[in-house]
Amino acid sequence: MWLRRVNSVVVEKVVFFKKNHCIASGIIRGLISSPPHSTAYSSKVSSSSSASLSNFLNLRNSCCCQDLKNLSLFSTSSGFLSSTPDRKVKGLPENWGSKKERSRKPVKIGIEMATDEKIEEILAPLRAAVKEQGDLVRKMKEMGNSEIDVKKAVVELKAKKKLLEDRELELSKTEEVFDRPRMEDLLKRRFFYDQSFAIYGGVTGQYDFGPMGCATKTNFLNFWRQFFVLEEGMFEVDCSILTPEPVLKASGHVDRFADLMVKDSKTGECFRLDHLIKATVEKLQKEKGTDKDKQDRMLQVLAQLDGYSKEEMEGLIQEFNVVSPTTGNPVGPPMEFNLMFSTSIGPTGLVKGFLRPETAQGIFVNFKRLLEFNQGKLPFAGAQIGNAFRNEISPRSGLLRVREFTMAEIEHFCDPNDLTHPRFVEVKDTIMTYYSACDQMEGKRPTRKTIGEAVADKLVANETLGYFLARIQMFLEKVGVNPEKLRFRQHMSNEMAHYARDCWDAEILTSYGWVECVGCADRSAFDLNQHTKATNVKLVAEKRLPAPKKIEQLQATLNKAAIGKQFKQNAKAIAEYFEHIDTSELESLAKSLESDGSMEITVKNQQFKLTPAEITIGKQEKTIHVEEFVPNVIEPSFGVGRILYSIFEHNFKVRPEDSQRTYFSLPPLMAPVKCSVLPLSSKPELLQMVTRVTQELRKREISFRVDDSSGSIGRRYSRTDEIAIPFGITIDFETVKSETVTLRERDTTLQVRLPIDKVGETVRDLATGTLTWTKAMEIFPKFDSQDAS
Amino acid sequence: MWLRRVNSVVVEKVVFFKKNHCIASGIIRGLISSPPHSTAYSSKVSSSSSASLSNFLNLRNSCCCQDLKNLSLFSTSSGFLSSTPDRKVKGLPENWGSKKERSRKPVKIGIEMATDEKIEEILAPLRAAVKEQGDLVRKMKEMGNSEIDVKKAVVELKAKKKLLEDRELELSKTEEVFDRPRMEDLLKRRFFYDQSFAIYGGVTGQYDFGPMGCATKTNFLNFWRQFFVLEEGMFEVDCSILTPEPVLKASGHVDRFADLMVKDSKTGECFRLDHLIKATVEKLQKEKGTDKDKQDRMLQVLAQLDGYSKEEMEGLIQEFNVVSPTTGNPVGPPMEFNLMFSTSIGPTGLVKGFLRPETAQGIFVNFKRLLEFNQGKLPFAGAQIGNAFRNEISPRSGLLRVREFTMAEIEHFCDPNDLTHPRFVEVKDTIMTYYSACDQMEGKRPTRKTIGEAVADKLVANETLGYFLARIQMFLEKVGVNPEKLRFRQHMSNEMAHYARDCWDAEILTSYGWVECVGCADRSAFDLNQHTKATNVKLVAEKRLPAPKKIEQLQATLNKAAIGKQFKQNAKAIAEYFEHIDTSELESLAKSLESDGSMEITVKNQQFKLTPAEITIGKQEKTIHVEEFVPNVIEPSFGVGRILYSIFEHNFKVRPEDSQRTYFSLPPLMAPVKCSVLPLSSKPELLQMVTRVTQELRKREISFRVDDSSGSIGRRYSRTDEIAIPFGITIDFETVKSETVTLRERDTTLQVRLPIDKVGETVRDLATGTLTWTKAMEIFPKFDSQDAS
Repeated sequence: MWLRRVNSVVVEKVVFFKKNHCIASGIIRGLISSPPHSTAYSSKVSSSSSASLSNFLNLRNSCCCQDLKNLSLFSTSSGFLSSTPDRKVKGLPENWGSKKERSRKPVKIGIEMATDEKIEEILAPLRAAVKEQGDLVRKMKEMGNSEIDVKKAVVELKAKKKLLEDRELELSKTEEVFDRPRMEDLLKRRFFYDQSFAIYGGVTGQYDFGPMGCATKTNFLNFWRQFFVLEEGMFEVDCSILTPEPVLKASGHVDRFADLMVKDSKTGECFRLDHLIKATVEKLQKEKGTDKDKQDRMLQVLAQLDGYSKEEMEGLIQEFNVVSPTTGNPVGPPMEFNLMFSTSIGPTGLVKGFLRPETAQGIFVNFKRLLEFNQGKLPFAGAQIGNAFRNEISPRSGLLRVREFTMAEIEHFCDPNDLTHPRFVEVKDTIMTYYSACDQMEGKRPTRKTIGEAVADKLVANETLGYFLARIQMFLEKVGVNPEKLRFRQHMSNEMAHYARDCWDAEILTSYGWVECVGCADRSAFDLNQHTKATNVKLVAEKRLPAPKKIEQLQATLNKAAIGKQFKQNAKAIAEYFEHIDTSELESLAKSLESDGSMEITVKNQQFKLTPAEITIGKQEKTIHVEEFVPNVIEPSFGVGRILYSIFEHNFKVRPEDSQRTYFSLPPLMAPVKCSVLPLSSKPELLQMVTRVTQELRKREISFRVDDSSGSIGRRYSRTDEIAIPFGITIDFETVKSETVTLRERDTTLQVRLPIDKVGETVRDLATGTLTWTKAMEIFPKFDSQDAS
Repeated sequence: MWLRRVNSVVVEKVVFFKKNHCIASGIIRGLISSPPHSTAYSSKVSSSSSASLSNFLNLRNSCCCQDLKNLSLFSTSSGFLSSTPDRKVKGLPENWGSKKERSRKPVKIGIEMATDEKIEEILAPLRAAVKEQGDLVRKMKEMGNSEIDVKKAVVELKAKKKLLEDRELELSKTEEVFDRPRMEDLLKRRFFYDQSFAIYGGVTGQYDFGPMGCATKTNFLNFWRQFFVLEEGMFEVDCSILTPEPVLKASGHVDRFADLMVKDSKTGECFRLDHLIKATVEKLQKEKGTDKDKQDRMLQVLAQLDGYSKEEMEGLIQEFNVVSPTTGNPVGPPMEFNLMFSTSIGPTGLVKGFLRPETAQGIFVNFKRLLEFNQGKLPFAGAQIGNAFRNEISPRSGLLRVREFTMAEIEHFCDPNDLTHPRFVEVKDTIMTYYSACDQMEGKRPTRKTIGEAVADKLVANETLGYFLARIQMFLEKVGVNPEKLRFRQHMSNEMAHYARDCWDAEILTSYGWVECVGCADRSAFDLNQHTKATNVKLVAEKRLPAPKKIEQLQATLNKAAIGKQFKQNAKAIAEYFEHIDTSELESLAKSLESDGSMEITVKNQQFKLTPAEITIGKQEKTIHVEEFVPNVIEPSFGVGRILYSIFEHNFKVRPEDSQRTYFSLPPLMAPVKCSVLPLSSKPELLQMVTRVTQELRKREISFRVDDSSGSIGRRYSRTDEIAIPFGITIDFETVKSETVTLRERDTTLQVRLPIDKVGETVRDLATGTLTWTKAMEIFPKFDSQDAS
């Protein structure tokens, strides 16, 4: 997978308080790539207090937004942030405006898709504009307009799409409150993950996972292995990270994974040149009074940005007066910068290598061995979990854009003429959200339907692709992604990687906007072909023909004696050359042999001239029973850090009754520790019971954490909630009397009382999902005398 | 862990056959570092046939060994390799001499420690020689002899130890046959692992794990996590591989992980210079007629080899005429070569980084966060599983010496004054084999006793170290290491890494000799001190004093106004300097202030002179409640690839009844796939049953592999045995009638018949070890009509 850039959206919430009551709040959003407070920002306010309008106006003034004319005002029906003292409101609690909170602004919040008719009304003109432009692009393609004109139209289409999408996000309902700084504080404080080498000042784009993050990641990867590798009978491999140059030359990474970069002439700060030119030109586009010619020129530049040479890019720096965005200093000349980390392998320094930028290539170069392992049969899938490395020019957005990351990739090899899937029937009723290339072109909203319908409608190209999309969704939901914040977006033809024939991304909505977390690409036969070309090792599969077939094949017959005599020590290499020759080359040699009476070949950098005395090329009949073909590859590729981050966001919660109590509602499957054991006091008879309980847990391999510190039980619950422990066993004085303990569930904070003998298997069943908490509540008596919250 | 070099022993077996019966066999061993057929080789024959003596003499002649006078002859009581037609013999089967086998010589075999008195008799003089030299070394140390003299004596001691050890290996009993090429063929053929990027010609020292190897490795790591991290409540972390230079500068890797290397002046082949000089000098030592002076000089060179400068090493090349061992060409000048792979992080190219050479440093730099996570309490352990990289000059011995490898490391932080372990009592009765530094010095054999006794005797320094040694042994046995081929060897003081205070290696006996697979070092406070020095971040723990303590402390009081006036913009840096100053430095400053009336400090490369007008240094009384200390670290460090390789060797088996059938007897825990499902025919009614069975297995998350190919059932069993599948479910025609299947165990090849309803939980319990096969044989009726073998 070659991850694309994240288009990030800043979502900032400003909340105003008066006498402990929130009276107004506003949301300000803008693209991260835009300078702050630019015209790309807009604002929205929600309030149910009549006093709020004037406050909102204050807010408006304080926001420095220039296009607040466009803002929409509506009151929320959920009572969100209302001053009504209703403790049961969904989302943010009524007593949100605690002392500590009031001192923390702005607050960042989460967002969700809206369906309101009213909103659709506002969006209608934007949708129409996208559709109009999309139709234009299509028409231009049909009419055979020049490539550059089409590209220009596409740039405009993208701009209109972006406008629509941002507006959609803005207008969407705000049901949940999400406070990123608070979550990041919790993640750091309880060491889920944090910047690497912090005591040395840290390195940007590198993170260390602490005990809780590491356990969550391990659970994620083990479940991935269970869900995909074991369940589907895939072949997991574990390949080298250090990769010699020729491999990545063949895959295209050496040539295409390079970007042009410029440095600030004074500070030495580095910028990716195409991004910098794009930002500069886009800024210029917005300036008033630019004439039509200049506007056209700018559209042209944006459209061609991928295609300029280094020299042309240098020209653009002059033309648009591109300077460092942080200092305003001029920038130096463009330099090639490959995103791969390079090193040399072995002591001679002659073998250039890279840290792999993706795990996929390890599977491709092992294709033959895997095919053999599967006794020559297709389809089969290779899978790999492992680290990959990209020397990002400017890493950012926490785990979303890093230099060292874990990927989990699948390469499903199949017959390109048979893309049915035997287990498709098992997933066909899965309802999913599709944002097709067409819908994007036409400014439509994503559609929802079953994957069965989607494949039948040809929205998704075939069963195999459909099967994986459905499985990806099922997987993501199980690990804790909010299904309402998940969509599958199809790449438009102009944004697809050069190798891909079709590609759908599982995108997850976070406070950074929609983030591509899983790519599912049809790579066709690209990679296997490339490695075959580079190595002369045929990476093909065979399939039995329905009936034996007679074919005529061009074949070279060598007069070995003559060749040996004439070419001596080179004779062997020449013979080998003809063993590996392909048909088209043989054809052209045959032609020149016929027309010129001789032919020339190049072997080991030497030229050899052969005449009919040494070689004859003629057609020969051959009966074949099997047919060779290069398999098609479907590649689901998971960015583990990105998904983990999204899961943390979707599961970050604040207790309605106490805004200071934050926790992660991770599914038990993902929870780093399954169970806490909390003795009410440190009396020896209670501690004895702790040992009995932990033995029960150890026996069943349930991870647990004992907290026998002196804090109140409520405080200790809250500490275990913070690290997402889903179940808590409390040992109280009753335990000593009746050999029973209480069991508390994290999200509901409800408790039951059960015998020690039962606690091991009950927690195991709850943790593995074979028992639900609701069911457990039916089996065992409810308990509520302790401070369970 | 800094792994030491493997001292490899070649073990070659030559078997002679006559009319399908083995009539004689010989074992030839020698150090890999010796040239083949040198005097280091010796030979042994075992045979029970009277005809064998003359054959042995032929063998002797064919071996080119010069010291066959020393060989020992004895007949094996087990009937091993005998011509008696007893099919139940242990070890090699009677019909070993099949056609194919006879064409394959030499055969390599495994070895085991002997206890025979006879052997002890032969070894006695060698033991005495080691003891004598050991005593001499000790005496020289006591007498305060010069370092170089002691070193010379140690070199001789090591040489004598080696002689003894090699002889011990030679004379040890040979019970099992081990055929390395056949095992390697199986590992490659069924793609357990193989060279990386083979289609590109491969890279030495890098391996890709295929489906079976990867699954075995995953099982290994998951069990490691279960056994150590979960069971012991350790804190697992997952840290960055890319490490900035200052971190590895502090750890000592930048300076000490560098070796001198020379290149063959014509081919460019690289050699590690100290190894090359050592080999050259050792060869010269063996030459007859070298005079005493020269012998002394050579001993001196060997003793000082670690301490020579680059220039001195260059002199040695001339002095001993060191040439390329492969071509005899002269070698070029010495070059520094650091074993770490270097790269640069970020686009500027200014941040130099390395691929970590061990995972340990990631834990040390996170010490503060982990201590906080543990609420400031000691002891606790950090753990990490991950890849590390070393740019070996000449990788070899398969998985034993590679450039990219997986480690699993534990850093147990504890109070240096309290090395008791609360769970030591649980392991105290574990019997282990210890090869202490003393025993090595005295030429004694390793001793066996419980770890409880070993700690009581002070053989093992303390409970914490002892606890980990016992746990390491328990772990290794569970994953399939033959306990008879496992010993714990203590480092002698002169071979310990610079940071270590004590170190025991778990060494496993393989066909390459004793291989260090797990190091268990007491690193004292070395690493934390180093990182504190480099970063000024105190990496310490606190402990509550039994009672508050009043102490007098030297303290600097700054006259801020005066300093500000005099040093202006540097005033702040000067104040900070005194915040971090340590007591000894403050003392010396106080002295010079008193004697000279001024003192000088260097801050940010600038010198500042301070007088009593700016600073006073005096003693102040302070009451302290806690005491800071730098924790001690005990580090068990596992080389995953090395252990996996050893497990493959120890579990590689040949069926007694058919030497063509090889398999791995991996414990179910480690087996890559737990169960095979084999329908006797591909009739639809049988295939239907396959689905029912696989559903039962899926439900319980048991990995399985269906083999519905047309091969005979025996052939299919043999194929699943090769990939170590411990249990096989066969679906036959009886299955359709009675809904029962047969279940076969790999090692015994015995079968039972049981209902489909029971097969899921039975296989699960067998695979997790909660049910033994013997027990299962009691529960279900035996079945023996199919060809079960």
